[in-house]
Amino acid sequence: MTPTAILLVHCPDQTGLVASVTSFLAAHRANILDLDQHVDTSQNLFFMRVSWDLNGFSLSETDFRSRFAADIAEPRQMTWSLYMDAPPPTFAVFVSHLPHCLVDLLGQFHAQIPVVVSNHQSLADIARRFDIPFHHVPVTAETKAQAEARQLNILREHGVEAVVLARYMQIVSPDFIARFPNRIINIHHSFLPAFPGAKPYHSAYHRGVKIIGATSHFVTAELDAGPIIEQDVVRVDHRDEIDDLVRKGRELEKLVLSRAVWGYSQRRILSVGNKTVVF
Amino acid sequence: MTPTAILLVHCPDQTGLVASVTSFLAAHRANILDLDQHVDTSQNLFFMRVSWDLNGFSLSETDFRSRFAADIAEPRQMTWSLYMDAPPPTFAVFVSHLPHCLVDLLGQFHAQIPVVVSNHQSLADIARRFDIPFHHVPVTAETKAQAEARQLNILREHGVEAVVLARYMQIVSPDFIARFPNRIINIHHSFLPAFPGAKPYHSAYHRGVKIIGATSHFVTAELDAGPIIEQDVVRVDHRDEIDDLVRKGRELEKLVLSRAVWGYSQRRILSVGNKTVVF
Amino acid sequence: MTPTAILLVHCPDQTGLVASVTSFLAAHRANILDLDQHVDTSQNLFFMRVSWDLNGFSLSETDFRSRFAADIAEPRQMTWSLYMDAPPPTFAVFVSHLPHCLVDLLGQFHAQIPVVVSNHQSLADIARRFDIPFHHVPVTAETKAQAEARQLNILREHGVEAVVLARYMQIVSPDFIARFPNRIINIHHSFLPAFPGAKPYHSAYHRGVKIIGATSHFVTAELDAGPIIEQDVVRVDHRDEIDDLVRKGRELEKLVLSRAVWGYSQRRILSVGNKTVVF
Amino acid sequence: MTPTAILLVHCPDQTGLVASVTSFLAAHRANILDLDQHVDTSQNLFFMRVSWDLNGFSLSETDFRSRFAADIAEPRQMTWSLYMDAPPPTFAVFVSHLPHCLVDLLGQFHAQIPVVVSNHQSLADIARRFDIPFHHVPVTAETKAQAEARQLNILREHGVEAVVLARYMQIVSPDFIARFPNRIINIHHSFLPAFPGAKPYHSAYHRGVKIIGATSHFVTAELDAGPIIEQDVVRVDHRDEIDDLVRKGRELEKLVLSRAVWGYSQRRILSVGNKTVVF
Repeated sequence: MTPTAILLVHCPDQTGLVASVTSFLAAHRANILDLDQHVDTSQNLFFMRVSWDLNGFSLSETDFRSRFAADIAEPRQMTWSLYMDAPPPTFAVFVSHLPHCLVDLLGQFHAQIPVVVSNHQSLADIARRFDIPFHHVPVTAETKAQAEARQLNILREHGVEAVVLARYMQIVSPDFIARFPNRIINIHHSFLPAFPGAKPYHSAYHRGVKIIGATSHFVTAELDAGPIIEQDVVRVDHRDEIDDLVRKGRELEKLVLSRAVWGYSQRRILSVGNKTVVF
Repeated sequence: MTPTAILLVHCPDQTGLVASVTSFLAAHRANILDLDQHVDTSQNLFFMRVSWDLNGFSLSETDFRSRFAADIAEPRQMTWSLYMDAPPPTFAVFVSHLPHCLVDLLGQFHAQIPVVVSNHQSLADIARRFDIPFHHVPVTAETKAQAEARQLNILREHGVEAVVLARYMQIVSPDFIARFPNRIINIHHSFLPAFPGAKPYHSAYHRGVKIIGATSHFVTAELDAGPIIEQDVVRVDHRDEIDDLVRKGRELEKLVLSRAVWGYSQRRILSVGNKTVVF
Repeated sequence: MTPTAILLVHCPDQTGLVASVTSFLAAHRANILDLDQHVDTSQNLFFMRVSWDLNGFSLSETDFRSRFAADIAEPRQMTWSLYMDAPPPTFAVFVSHLPHCLVDLLGQFHAQIPVVVSNHQSLADIARRFDIPFHHVPVTAETKAQAEARQLNILREHGVEAVVLARYMQIVSPDFIARFPNRIINIHHSFLPAFPGAKPYHSAYHRGVKIIGATSHFVTAELDAGPIIEQDVVRVDHRDEIDDLVRKGRELEKLVLSRAVWGYSQRRILSVGNKTVVF
Repeated sequence: MTPTAILLVHCPDQTGLVASVTSFLAAHRANILDLDQHVDTSQNLFFMRVSWDLNGFSLSETDFRSRFAADIAEPRQMTWSLYMDAPPPTFAVFVSHLPHCLVDLLGQFHAQIPVVVSNHQSLADIARRFDIPFHHVPVTAETKAQAEARQLNILREHGVEAVVLARYMQIVSPDFIARFPNRIINIHHSFLPAFPGAKPYHSAYHRGVKIIGATSHFVTAELDAGPIIEQDVVRVDHRDEIDDLVRKGRELEKLVLSRAVWGYSQRRILSVGNKTVVF
């Protein structure tokens, strides 16, 4: 694989932004592989993701960081992240009883998942099958604070960058969320904002919808209301009982969660306010 | 076209229902063209739609009605409807300012639409182009009762069976609805139950969903909460402004409404409580 | 779980078929849980799947088989299968190098997969992780006949009913296929009949399609031409390189293959000629 | 509406392309509204579409054309098109007997369709209802050359930029096509490359596919093989007869063709070789 760099930028929209960044890159012999930009006109915000081939690129990471900051980013109030020949991010996967998303993630992102955390023992065997450390951290209303302290220790020990809630059936506290801003990805088993909260397949069945969905989103303090990363749907009809909705929905959950984890891994997701830009 | 009969049945579930109906039909030489049945186990209800070729069928409509009622339906508490070599249903289309659903319906169901009703004048020209009578019935908060009385007169004069609200921007009163139970079809421009009420594309945009939808449903007294007939969706992303959502959504609205009208025309929709069975 | 029976029937279409079967069941106190029937008018064929609750049913399996044959099936030239309180079918999964479908199937249908067979060693570890016997049977042009004999021995030893080709990169011989008529399920990584044969993602890329698909089908002697069980698609655009098509396609392959295996397990698939009826 | 400019560019890929164009625009005070670029790495080609607000832009169209050519485009071998506060393109719609696509286009793109051409009389009434001139140009094997000469005269008289074949059931000659390179849009009623040629719904039915589609593409000399602009699909099953495929397919045809015409109108489609980039 060619060594590549990825630069993510967002800032107030203004004239000449693309030109300033691409001219800077061109001046240092970057061969751009991919460039996506977007202007959110309602918020007057500019977003860009650009990747380039590091072969022939004339700046070291240190030099890039200092010169890009001084010459380009600071004058334009840019928020930016650089991944220069960087390894992919690592994730802790939090689960409860349902194995399908965990198995799917381990099957695909094995190397990026150093640890599985659960409030139950039931999926320990799955983690073991994939040789991944499994930590059982029970959570009750009374022990929640201590449990989250233990979880944070585990995340620190394994040096994970982000957390995936793979049908984890506990609400994460605002304090915990604040430590991982836009770095906790949840899968919700409905087409949000329809059917937030518990038992969405039951609600969908009783409402008689003709299509069900799943939603992956970043977790924020407001339940099921964080920035949406990806959604997908499948058709159902009157023949489908709740069990069929659950079965069809699980396939969606796997798909929609794995797309979100892939997008995060590729540094394709930016978010500002309550919305994402997925390049 | 072969003359056909369609029978719709629903009743409490019990042993031998399919056998009783199909044996009755077989005894009178019906060649069944299509049979769909469904048991809603959570409500213990049985639904069936059966159609047969009238060539060779040995009962007149009058005889069928009396014998089927006495021998089959009454002992089993069946609710049933028979359409024996019947013309398709006729619809009044109610509109306001937006032409897309009206043009689409007139393009497809021309013969079944004897009248268009609107609270504005702006679409009179569309109706005229298709040679359909157009009635302008202005509606204000004060004149709503009289306006609905005028509308009902128009429906009566044109002998329509059902009403299609094709982006009609007025709430229909419970009294009006009660005259057309499960015979008023609305198109709502969101994936219900997400984004009920006004301006759903704006809400979808601000929520940052990745998929938008449209929903056709029977109108009940509770706004946007009637039995869903059909839904469909289309993918959107951060590049889509509200205008793009509106444009993509209009295509969906046409599609989802015309499928509902087609299903109604084919006598494929049964509804009990707040759900539909669409055979 | 309630003990249930499933009956599959197909035969030349004729008057009174549904009535004959459902009357027979009603006479022996079957409470029908689900009934689907279909008439293929172009081939004049009738298909039915009916399932019923065995609680209260008054016939033993032996009695059902003899009476149903004599009274109902033979006079009407029915081909039929009965699964009366039967365990789900077992599958041998054949693979080569790609793990995604195998992991997905083992994650879902673990108990029904007693054996994995491969022409390579690379996936032995996956099978081991799930405690499933793995047989390495190399295949070359010269050794194909012996290799298939070994494979058939393995299938016999494990008593499997059906075979799943989960991205197995070898063509199975007509002799082998003849031993498992409509019991070998393949996943093809295109939307058949587009792009049959090798490297369909490359072909799709070069043709510039805007949607790619996957197809599960029963294997017949003609390559990629057997009865289609299930298909699904995903949108692609000019930004997608061949690698992206492969990545998106793998998600589809998992989904489409697992739906086919599920449908087979539920005895929902009938096939006649080159088409399936999936109830 | 804000006056806007749209610039389309493609050329061999090279370092600094985005920078050169955006720096040029920034130097003349363009406020970029939208920028999409794409590099086709397999062909080493660069594509860009950029639009900007003309308020405050300091170049006239004449000045832009001369300076951009000299300073930016020629040194980089760019092929480019500029639409500066330009009216939308006009289309001739060619039809035969089927009205659905024509009605849909007239309902949406009325002002951009100055003329309808048909080899039959049957849709004259539709054009008349929308007050669009209708030209009946019969085509037979013997008269094809003269008929196309008449068609070209009609197109010239009405000054149309492009042609839409809206289920036009005649093959257009290579000579005719050569006059409108990438300016003839056809709708084909299958998911190409599956089922090219005549009667695709019949072929789809007999092959037993579970999904059908429609494809809009630019017309090239090779039948049904031109660059694909847009495709969409809908699920079918064993219950769907050929008539159902035709009915479901017509909805797709309308949708897929109108998306292509919209994309063309917005100058969003570039094509090189046999593929399109749709921004």
